[in-house]
Amino acid sequence: MTQAAGDRRRIADDMHGFWAVIPAGGAGTRLWPLSRSSSPKFLHDLTGTGCSLLQATWNRLEPLCGDRIMVVTGVLHEATVRAQLPGLSPANLVAEPQPRDSMAAIGLAAALLERRDPDAVIGSFAADHVIGEPEVFAECVREAVVVARTGYVVTIGIEPTRPATGFGYIHVGDALVIAGAPNGRQVRSFVEKPDAMTARGFLDAGEYHWNAGMFVVKASVLLDLLAEFHPELAAGLRDIAAQPARLAEVWPGLTKISIDHAVAEPAAAQGRVAVVPGRFTWDDVGDFASLASLLSDAAPVPGLKVLGEVDLVLAKDATGVVIPGSGRTVAVLGLDDIVVVDTPDAVLVTTRARAQDVKALVDLLKATGRADLT
Amino acid sequence: MTQAAGDRRRIADDMHGFWAVIPAGGAGTRLWPLSRSSSPKFLHDLTGTGCSLLQATWNRLEPLCGDRIMVVTGVLHEATVRAQLPGLSPANLVAEPQPRDSMAAIGLAAALLERRDPDAVIGSFAADHVIGEPEVFAECVREAVVVARTGYVVTIGIEPTRPATGFGYIHVGDALVIAGAPNGRQVRSFVEKPDAMTARGFLDAGEYHWNAGMFVVKASVLLDLLAEFHPELAAGLRDIAAQPARLAEVWPGLTKISIDHAVAEPAAAQGRVAVVPGRFTWDDVGDFASLASLLSDAAPVPGLKVLGEVDLVLAKDATGVVIPGSGRTVAVLGLDDIVVVDTPDAVLVTTRARAQDVKALVDLLKATGRADLT
Repeated sequence: MTQAAGDRRRIADDMHGFWAVIPAGGAGTRLWPLSRSSSPKFLHDLTGTGCSLLQATWNRLEPLCGDRIMVVTGVLHEATVRAQLPGLSPANLVAEPQPRDSMAAIGLAAALLERRDPDAVIGSFAADHVIGEPEVFAECVREAVVVARTGYVVTIGIEPTRPATGFGYIHVGDALVIAGAPNGRQVRSFVEKPDAMTARGFLDAGEYHWNAGMFVVKASVLLDLLAEFHPELAAGLRDIAAQPARLAEVWPGLTKISIDHAVAEPAAAQGRVAVVPGRFTWDDVGDFASLASLLSDAAPVPGLKVLGEVDLVLAKDATGVVIPGSGRTVAVLGLDDIVVVDTPDAVLVTTRARAQDVKALVDLLKATGRADLT
Repeated sequence: MTQAAGDRRRIADDMHGFWAVIPAGGAGTRLWPLSRSSSPKFLHDLTGTGCSLLQATWNRLEPLCGDRIMVVTGVLHEATVRAQLPGLSPANLVAEPQPRDSMAAIGLAAALLERRDPDAVIGSFAADHVIGEPEVFAECVREAVVVARTGYVVTIGIEPTRPATGFGYIHVGDALVIAGAPNGRQVRSFVEKPDAMTARGFLDAGEYHWNAGMFVVKASVLLDLLAEFHPELAAGLRDIAAQPARLAEVWPGLTKISIDHAVAEPAAAQGRVAVVPGRFTWDDVGDFASLASLLSDAAPVPGLKVLGEVDLVLAKDATGVVIPGSGRTVAVLGLDDIVVVDTPDAVLVTTRARAQDVKALVDLLKATGRADLT
């Protein structure tokens, strides 16, 4: 048996009873006008591969889980998700009546899967992140599953490559001793997005990982922890799983809270969270600067990235990123680090440096009665 | 009689037999993608007044000439010109089979008018310039006509307000002594567009005016001078005027030359050109920087000019000019002196500083097989 074949066999053995959960939500406001509330970021091909971020997430998880993938999305996006993922069984598509933040979304999947298999381990992976090196990712998830079977909430921490201020961090503690999971470590705490100096300190210290929001945990462990910290929310989710017809009635009353605040942070304070380091490239594609950094240079002008039809871009003395998206020609002359995003009803012109502030434009649209564009 | 009524009466008396000629040509390449070969600059409202530049030119001249206005344009634009100028008599619309530069265009009008009235004085005024203070302009043209009746080629020189490098200059000589034209002066020479230092010197010297390409001259004087300097061209134009049916046959063989090179410069060398100073504001709207300077600040953000529907512009921390032209929203964030021009099939993003180089983009389009967009 070759090593690769051995790796695959080991992964297959460990992954028995492991379910991937894909919460497919979030508006991607800082990617306006590409991302809209009616057509959010995860439904778009933002890397020029021909796959949407959701499809790429599916393709990354399918080798690990087969058809044990559950997608939780808003009712508004149900049809598009179904169309983009023909392999998704209708029984594994959960449509939220309204957004209720990540704890309710992932918790409902956990409650549904706990009933199908009391020993189920779930891993939640956002539908709108970009991940490289799928083999490295797979091995990392395998280790996380091994650790999760021992009762930990396991997060996958990304080894930082720069002092990023746009991500939360995980403060890593002592090594765990778990067979088959040599890289597992205790989590000391979760840390909010730091300022630049703090981020530099984290990078130098070497004990901090980026929090990519990936959690691997036994479904029952997650719900039992939730029952400790937010008993009504846990009860509501288990109620819905027992009687799915009550979804519309119970869902609107559930607490809106993230899984980080609801479970991960308080559980970490009790020493019940572990981390497996992810040595793959990862990005949350949070804004156009981040998106630009993921694109390769295949543009008419060196230094200018293009997402979409290169033939529609006309450029001279320009660097940055151009996204033609309405069939119209986009001409850029004499601008550095520019961002131009063309869509059928709106065009955005900004800079990579101001990419984070695109959210303010969307707020401005809402405040001035043009929410139809958001 | 009030002074204004007296002014109007004197203007009316002096203007007897005076014809305005409007050469309506030129692609306005540096105003791409607004200006196209199929829909050039003069057909557009570039000042937000509701009139195209051509209509504004007509409106400025009509009080001086009544219906004695002749328009020379390309066959391609004949129908649009007719539609924009309902007051233009069909007999006064001349359609060039192909562009043959300004001497042929203005010379043909002169030859046609010379046959109608041997004493006719013509004044040529480009269809795509912007002029302020119409009363000042009218008085200036009146003086130019008075000087032209004495046999001079008269140009109207714009008093410079800055050391512009984008215009040619007129070097002014001694005062003329002509009754009714106290401001008339000899022209020493025409000077090509200067560099910045030379332009600064011109401004300081006070003896240089901008050459706005406005010529006032007896039709017969213009053609007789042309017959001296370019006899075949003069003969060709007079042939066509005598036998209009020969237009299609004779026109393609005519020399392509500007009126400046063909007549004004050699005539100036012989002391046969005069100038009347124009103390009105004038701009050739050569590029988007020039266009921006003509627009008033009525934008959602201070420092940002908008030509078109202000409601379509969304801006934050932005200065420059935005021209929404396709009904789509244009959002600009964090950019200074930006130029964004939106049209149904192309969008341009550049800066005021690079506005002159838009021509290079148009050349690039032609070179890459996308001439349909130019």
